[in-house]
Amino acid sequence: MNYLYQAVDEIVGFISSALKMLKIEQVSRMIEALEETYRKNNLRKILVMGAGRSGLVAKAFAMRLLHLGYHVYALGETLVPSIGPNDLVVAISGSGRTKLIVTAAEAAKNVGAKIIAITSFPDSPLARLADIVVEVPGRTKIAAEEDYFARQILGIHEPLAPLGTLFEDTAMVFLDGVIVELMHRLGKTEEDLKKIHANIEL
Amino acid sequence: MNYLYQAVDEIVGFISSALKMLKIEQVSRMIEALEETYRKNNLRKILVMGAGRSGLVAKAFAMRLLHLGYHVYALGETLVPSIGPNDLVVAISGSGRTKLIVTAAEAAKNVGAKIIAITSFPDSPLARLADIVVEVPGRTKIAAEEDYFARQILGIHEPLAPLGTLFEDTAMVFLDGVIVELMHRLGKTEEDLKKIHANIEL
Amino acid sequence: MNYLYQAVDEIVGFISSALKMLKIEQVSRMIEALEETYRKNNLRKILVMGAGRSGLVAKAFAMRLLHLGYHVYALGETLVPSIGPNDLVVAISGSGRTKLIVTAAEAAKNVGAKIIAITSFPDSPLARLADIVVEVPGRTKIAAEEDYFARQILGIHEPLAPLGTLFEDTAMVFLDGVIVELMHRLGKTEEDLKKIHANIEL
Amino acid sequence: MNYLYQAVDEIVGFISSALKMLKIEQVSRMIEALEETYRKNNLRKILVMGAGRSGLVAKAFAMRLLHLGYHVYALGETLVPSIGPNDLVVAISGSGRTKLIVTAAEAAKNVGAKIIAITSFPDSPLARLADIVVEVPGRTKIAAEEDYFARQILGIHEPLAPLGTLFEDTAMVFLDGVIVELMHRLGKTEEDLKKIHANIEL
Repeated sequence: MNYLYQAVDEIVGFISSALKMLKIEQVSRMIEALEETYRKNNLRKILVMGAGRSGLVAKAFAMRLLHLGYHVYALGETLVPSIGPNDLVVAISGSGRTKLIVTAAEAAKNVGAKIIAITSFPDSPLARLADIVVEVPGRTKIAAEEDYFARQILGIHEPLAPLGTLFEDTAMVFLDGVIVELMHRLGKTEEDLKKIHANIEL
Repeated sequence: MNYLYQAVDEIVGFISSALKMLKIEQVSRMIEALEETYRKNNLRKILVMGAGRSGLVAKAFAMRLLHLGYHVYALGETLVPSIGPNDLVVAISGSGRTKLIVTAAEAAKNVGAKIIAITSFPDSPLARLADIVVEVPGRTKIAAEEDYFARQILGIHEPLAPLGTLFEDTAMVFLDGVIVELMHRLGKTEEDLKKIHANIEL
Repeated sequence: MNYLYQAVDEIVGFISSALKMLKIEQVSRMIEALEETYRKNNLRKILVMGAGRSGLVAKAFAMRLLHLGYHVYALGETLVPSIGPNDLVVAISGSGRTKLIVTAAEAAKNVGAKIIAITSFPDSPLARLADIVVEVPGRTKIAAEEDYFARQILGIHEPLAPLGTLFEDTAMVFLDGVIVELMHRLGKTEEDLKKIHANIEL
Repeated sequence: MNYLYQAVDEIVGFISSALKMLKIEQVSRMIEALEETYRKNNLRKILVMGAGRSGLVAKAFAMRLLHLGYHVYALGETLVPSIGPNDLVVAISGSGRTKLIVTAAEAAKNVGAKIIAITSFPDSPLARLADIVVEVPGRTKIAAEEDYFARQILGIHEPLAPLGTLFEDTAMVFLDGVIVELMHRLGKTEEDLKKIHANIEL
């Protein structure tokens, strides 16, 4: 099982390096937008979106936002209300080019929502339409020449983790960090989260 | 395409007969519980549940409850908070025996929620634990000897629509009728529903 | 509960009238495409799509296609493979204008898939890009002037069922009829469907 | 944003330590069961299950199994067929006590499926019924006295990451390592995965 151990080392090493490369002003703007949304909780909603595994990471983040007391929804689920001005959209796409996510984010922008893009590419269509961009490094699925960003970090030639894995796992840990920061800013304890956590779930 | 036309005739005929057999006191108790939940909207939640196609019917109902202004959630989706005393559970199961639904409804009962069961079998495990049972006829998936209820209605020997189809389609139309009744009781217009209806959806 | 009973009468009456208005050549082309896909089962897949309640109807149809032995997937679920030439897409949208569905159907067309559109509007963007259009009447959510089609059927001025309800319920019953037709064409009994039906499900 | 940085350090440190504590014989049995399932691909299916965020991790794993060519399904999604003898169930639960998951795993065992449990607690109900247990450390949601396992690893008194976060993120990375090991054992390149990866997705 050499490959398994090498792969988990690669992934953990990547996440660790990647998180050190986060741009503090970007992260700071994201946290402030989330904090502000909470303060105006009765008026404001959050809609998360992402395709494939990025969509699952978006949902894992949304679940914790729910536990913090947010009015939060995930694109693709049954129970999603209309959104409007000042509502927040968190769109996750490593490449920033996933067609349905760009289309959905554009639609959200058109109704006045504020868009936060979590992506590896600040020049991507998703990033360009976003109000706040948080660059999260990843070896994304798009063309190899755009891939050097990830390789640069680790100095590797043949990464083991396939497709979007490094981006997705890094985004997962980063967003779990965002939750901890919000807990402290909003004065929430683990006990508070537990009270909202589903008691009947699948 | 004879079979298609015969089948849709059978289904429409079944729905029509089945809806005439609804027990008015049962339906009335369900409507009142839903109305009361709305009036205490800030405190109370609704959790819908159902397996397979019954789960999809439950979600279709939940979507309209959302449009009416309810705080409503569907078991199996990402964003489900804890529920508690006085919250409402709407559990849909033709046979009333679907294992995970009975288990989930029991758990909900244990935390004090009020259970509404939509089922063809008032003696089923789900119905027995429910606070309110609404019998909706259907040719359910369980053993043939229990099947006579549905056959009785239509006087048929070999229904065309397979498995739970007749129950599911009847439940769908019945619950859409419940929505219209609630609209009028809560003073909601179609315009009100439109305002909450997702403007970005999949 | 007058409104409930009036509403279910309206819905059943609408479904019944609407199904009589189905265009037999359209339905026939749809059935043949599905039958052909089954015969080439090892090579061909079906992807269903729809937003909101139309998406739930699409999933209810997909579940039965699975029971018939198809390789079938639903947009928005986790487990969706790539599709390509000769694969079939079934896209459901009353208005034929739901943005994400039109975008997804276009993407499917670009990779060579054959598109079946289930819609009330044969001139809509979805219908125009489809290979096969099946018109299913409905009082859709779009502008009132396009609404007369549904009113014409029933001669009503103020339909009770809100938003897309009439389209969705009619599409549900129509697609259940399609399943019965396919059962007979493919020589499948209810017992065959039961064997594939999930034994552990939520 | 001190808390964010401390939290991501804690999470990355935890994942790294936890993965070193994996029991090689357990992981080896899991990999072999998965490899064998692939070799008998036409006959055998995999059903993944997990509640809440563990369910999202299960789905992220399932998506990659699909890309590898497996017939894989996720409990709670629409398109799930029956499973039977020799089919594989991968059940993820930090506590090993999540009611609906234990109930579903029992049902799977009763129809002859082989159960792989990913859990922090080898004495939990889920682990006891499983054929293969892979212990993945985590600071799970259950009672504090059982919590020392996680604390022992890091020597911490008040972990920052709330609820099941450490288990979920560790399981995510571990299962991504399993995918890389399987890629090499099954002779799959990233290009092979890309061919199956959804080209139309949300």
